[in-house]
Amino acid sequence: MTELRRDYLTESWVIVAKERGMRPSDFKSKGALHPSIGVCPFCPGNEHMTLPAPLLYLERSGRLVVGADRDGERLKDWLVRVVPNLYPALRPDVDSAGRCDGSLVCIGGRGVHEVIIETPKHDAQIHMLNDHHLALVFRAYAERFVALASLPYVKYVSLFRNYGEAAGASLSHPHSQIIATPIVPPRISEETVVLKESWDGSSCLLDNVLEREAKSERLVCENKDAVAFCPYASMFPFEVWVAPRRHIKNIADLSESERLSIARLTQRVLKALHAILGDPPYNYVFHQSTLNEEYHMHLRILPRLSIFAGFELNTGIVINTVPPEKAASQIRKTMEEVV
Amino acid sequence: MTELRRDYLTESWVIVAKERGMRPSDFKSKGALHPSIGVCPFCPGNEHMTLPAPLLYLERSGRLVVGADRDGERLKDWLVRVVPNLYPALRPDVDSAGRCDGSLVCIGGRGVHEVIIETPKHDAQIHMLNDHHLALVFRAYAERFVALASLPYVKYVSLFRNYGEAAGASLSHPHSQIIATPIVPPRISEETVVLKESWDGSSCLLDNVLEREAKSERLVCENKDAVAFCPYASMFPFEVWVAPRRHIKNIADLSESERLSIARLTQRVLKALHAILGDPPYNYVFHQSTLNEEYHMHLRILPRLSIFAGFELNTGIVINTVPPEKAASQIRKTMEEVV
Repeated sequence: MTELRRDYLTESWVIVAKERGMRPSDFKSKGALHPSIGVCPFCPGNEHMTLPAPLLYLERSGRLVVGADRDGERLKDWLVRVVPNLYPALRPDVDSAGRCDGSLVCIGGRGVHEVIIETPKHDAQIHMLNDHHLALVFRAYAERFVALASLPYVKYVSLFRNYGEAAGASLSHPHSQIIATPIVPPRISEETVVLKESWDGSSCLLDNVLEREAKSERLVCENKDAVAFCPYASMFPFEVWVAPRRHIKNIADLSESERLSIARLTQRVLKALHAILGDPPYNYVFHQSTLNEEYHMHLRILPRLSIFAGFELNTGIVINTVPPEKAASQIRKTMEEVV
Repeated sequence: MTELRRDYLTESWVIVAKERGMRPSDFKSKGALHPSIGVCPFCPGNEHMTLPAPLLYLERSGRLVVGADRDGERLKDWLVRVVPNLYPALRPDVDSAGRCDGSLVCIGGRGVHEVIIETPKHDAQIHMLNDHHLALVFRAYAERFVALASLPYVKYVSLFRNYGEAAGASLSHPHSQIIATPIVPPRISEETVVLKESWDGSSCLLDNVLEREAKSERLVCENKDAVAFCPYASMFPFEVWVAPRRHIKNIADLSESERLSIARLTQRVLKALHAILGDPPYNYVFHQSTLNEEYHMHLRILPRLSIFAGFELNTGIVINTVPPEKAASQIRKTMEEVV
């Protein structure tokens, strides 16, 4: 059974995905919920442990080749490899029809869940990749975004990276994930309404925020295409947003140069956080429009040093003990010294 | 500095509370963020380590006495002790005035943050308390709710319990917390609108839900005053809601019998979860109206077996791998066997 269920009271949704509870982990402390695994399914040589890859970047005679596995076959010597998640939260072969029975509302869990294996090297986390390889990872993000966004039943493509057990990763081999959903998530929908309303034909609310934060004490770093800053109402200690200067709806609309600029700023921030916080767990998540509505895409880097406790779960209000001004100053200083 | 800051885009709020980052912990793994502490400030004999208690339940010559510390004095031999949090998220002596400068919106962090020390025994968690003592804890919840709700600048009183490090507790001595906020949290506000709209003079949406879930496979247990069930769209594995049968706005409006009924159901559920999951971390949180608006108060028990990862933080949609029907069946079975 995989379905999306709506909260009795508000527009909150839960994916009930029983099978996903069986996914293996290579972290020791995951305990009973996740069987631990002896061998890494994302390492070269173990390609048969995954389903066929819809996208691979391969190096053949020193040239980049774009490929895909066919049934039965698994291509070797890849640089980046995208595979269907073996324990998907949503799946393409489910009926997406909804049911509404009084206050019990659900829709079928139809969607796509993929894993972007970023490198064949088991320990080469994204902040260590060279520029060429980093660009490939972000290119894979964009290509899979386009492929999944074009499916008729997909309303949103969520693109994110979980790093470390406390950030929800269950396997340590460097990877990102992509989940395509059959609804626009309420959070994205709310943001879209605000950005759409603020759009005056030349700039949106986030354009104004960018211009302002670039001159503020919350600025982290910038380049010709993008700005990185600690948001005024950071929900997480050392939270950083990376946004293109141009008003762009989603990752597919970025030029190659802009995409690389965002990747580079992201990597610089991750390197600094690594130096300051000592290999912290983090998520990064892309906020963007999938249905081509007015939006200003950006990436949010969310270090997981704090825990949402009873107050947060009761109220939705978050307590953050690190002011973003202090975080930004420390990141800037570290960047000068080590990055 | 303590202030509430609003997200650039949506009605999300963050409390920036720098001093709270300095609170001590007696959990070893908290690391650099929290200095570890050698002695428990909540244990008898260490009363001087806290501020004066605005409420104590004491036993004197076999009778229950209600008291309060005066400045300088700390009453001994208490059963339940309520003290101001030494590292408050919000504080009463702050100016609550707001500032709005374009997309930078904040208000002063005025509020109250208290700790309810539930028992003098360092290891007597709430699921182990006898009926008499359990009733005292819930009475303290109600008394402090009334006291804080009456303050002119308070718009919501959040009452919650964090158990275990993974649920955000920093001290292990049994305690609950209460945070009074100067705004109605958006989440509570949303629920209030829906419950108010659904109120037809004799029942609300949650009354209908209760009636229905009490007959469903998601029922956990019930008594004459209250019902416990796993909600249809459970956000957490083994999530349980405990609600009074009567349409009641907040904990202050419960009769003594109803309050005890809810406390007993809560305790039964916690005992069962302890048996099934082996001392799991959890939060429980009261959803209620502080401003006396139409609402149907209830308590949510939220075991913390899963981690909100990139997908949840990006979309607000939660993945739950344990269907509530399965959780309820397991809890019911365990209750028959061991509770």
